[in-house]
Amino acid sequence: MRPALLALLVAAALSPSLAVAADETPKPKTTQELLDASQPSDWRTLDPADTLYLELASGRVVVELAPDFAPEHVGNIRTLAHEGYWDGMSINRSQDNFVVQWGDPAEEGQPRKSLGSAKTQLPAEFERPAAGLDFHALPDKDGWAPQVGFAAGFPAARDPAGGKAWMAHCYGAVGAGRGMAADSSDGTELYVVDGQSPRQLDRNITLVGRVVDGMELLSVLPRGTGPLGFYEDAAQRVPIEAIRLATDVPEAERPKLQVLRTDTPLFDAVVESRRNRRDDWYKRPAGHIDLCNITIPTREPPAADAP
Amino acid sequence: MRPALLALLVAAALSPSLAVAADETPKPKTTQELLDASQPSDWRTLDPADTLYLELASGRVVVELAPDFAPEHVGNIRTLAHEGYWDGMSINRSQDNFVVQWGDPAEEGQPRKSLGSAKTQLPAEFERPAAGLDFHALPDKDGWAPQVGFAAGFPAARDPAGGKAWMAHCYGAVGAGRGMAADSSDGTELYVVDGQSPRQLDRNITLVGRVVDGMELLSVLPRGTGPLGFYEDAAQRVPIEAIRLATDVPEAERPKLQVLRTDTPLFDAVVESRRNRRDDWYKRPAGHIDLCNITIPTREPPAADAP
Repeated sequence: MRPALLALLVAAALSPSLAVAADETPKPKTTQELLDASQPSDWRTLDPADTLYLELASGRVVVELAPDFAPEHVGNIRTLAHEGYWDGMSINRSQDNFVVQWGDPAEEGQPRKSLGSAKTQLPAEFERPAAGLDFHALPDKDGWAPQVGFAAGFPAARDPAGGKAWMAHCYGAVGAGRGMAADSSDGTELYVVDGQSPRQLDRNITLVGRVVDGMELLSVLPRGTGPLGFYEDAAQRVPIEAIRLATDVPEAERPKLQVLRTDTPLFDAVVESRRNRRDDWYKRPAGHIDLCNITIPTREPPAADAP
Repeated sequence: MRPALLALLVAAALSPSLAVAADETPKPKTTQELLDASQPSDWRTLDPADTLYLELASGRVVVELAPDFAPEHVGNIRTLAHEGYWDGMSINRSQDNFVVQWGDPAEEGQPRKSLGSAKTQLPAEFERPAAGLDFHALPDKDGWAPQVGFAAGFPAARDPAGGKAWMAHCYGAVGAGRGMAADSSDGTELYVVDGQSPRQLDRNITLVGRVVDGMELLSVLPRGTGPLGFYEDAAQRVPIEAIRLATDVPEAERPKLQVLRTDTPLFDAVVESRRNRRDDWYKRPAGHIDLCNITIPTREPPAADAP
């Protein structure tokens, strides 16, 4: 039973739990059992105006933009994508246990590609007023922020005393690189977290969204050997075929992707099923989960829901 | 200044801070400044009896074993390496944001390779008595354990009330896959964490060490498309040329690798430099760090220290 050994680590996510004898209290449902019992209303379809497709030779990465957190950056990114700004550019950096990053590969002092009708100056969008944001808090404490949870479908944090909320740097988070000045990002240089969550970046840089599908195409990119994981040789850069906004893609060519809503009783139950793993493999449920350990499930809509 | 934009994210680790004007309070030192001022006694050399070399076509991965936490498993792994158990086997699994895993690729029901003189049955080593372990606690709270810090050079946790300590599942942690029974691991199936720290595994499975060099060779392996990231096609498995114990390798062929000690005032200062980033790029130092955000520095010994 060799390659199956560690498999059991996450068996709860893949297989129904063992039958419960009649004289036992029924077990709490596993994550998969909860998802299997989900209703169509537990899922949401990505808004094409907030959806980017990063097209690589290896496949498509789907990014959901977060206008509730970074409206100015998201607006600029929509314009840049609509005008084909990134088409033919490259991923220029891959730093182990940290980020990949793409954008204009022009070196310091070389001419840069025009931003077209996108803005060249944006405000820092490190945080936003907590008011007006439907924040769904986790029960667990967090070392980085007074509260953590989910808002608008994104992992986020909140400071009730200060009245602020912000997105969190979890695996898959997409942010806008900046220089020394807080307001020096324009949305052209985008990075994706692919290691241990670097939460020290929270409120120090503008997050614009997160990868909802295709992370495994980014996380395997060879690490650059230059400082900070930049590719030292231009030939090592990973070509970007195109970055397109879903609204610019014919509907028939858009993936039918649904994301689990994070503001429902079902989602709370899913989180609880991860806080305390109840399948037989686990000997000691943790009674805790960190924000960035929660993976938001996605699916293709079942046939019955399809148009 | 394009590809340099996000570079500034971690500039503190790479460049000296700006000169301090005479009328300002000197800044706290950055991580790099602290390391530059380190003394030989701040570093330790790996014990060859606790060092494994995983040899891949792409290079060498160096694992430090943790006999203070898992003496029985470490003893078996030494025997398995000494007898060439893994030579010619393969990495069989790569699951995004979780683990890679190697061992005997034999399917369920197929004959397995003999373990030679290694033991076929080991006790679970999920935790150990806290007594007798020099535990260096972090100042920050942790959601998974009453205390976290470092012990014997490894990221670890402790429950003072229960009198137990255990290694933590941080990036690079190496563990021994098991089946349903707690004592079903024999050290032949080893996994390495290469995503967000899966701390829910702490005290549910035996950790045996951690990767101290070469993580970037494991983290880029293509993700398997089978359940749990197993490679579906045998041709996708990644061949292991050999796994050798350093004591079985001529001294001249061992890398001269030093690891920063974790029980020194310098290490405390390094941790503080990561808890509160003081370079000019950061606008808001976090005042916190999670255990698994702390990377233990390594180096080649400077020429003056070389034999």
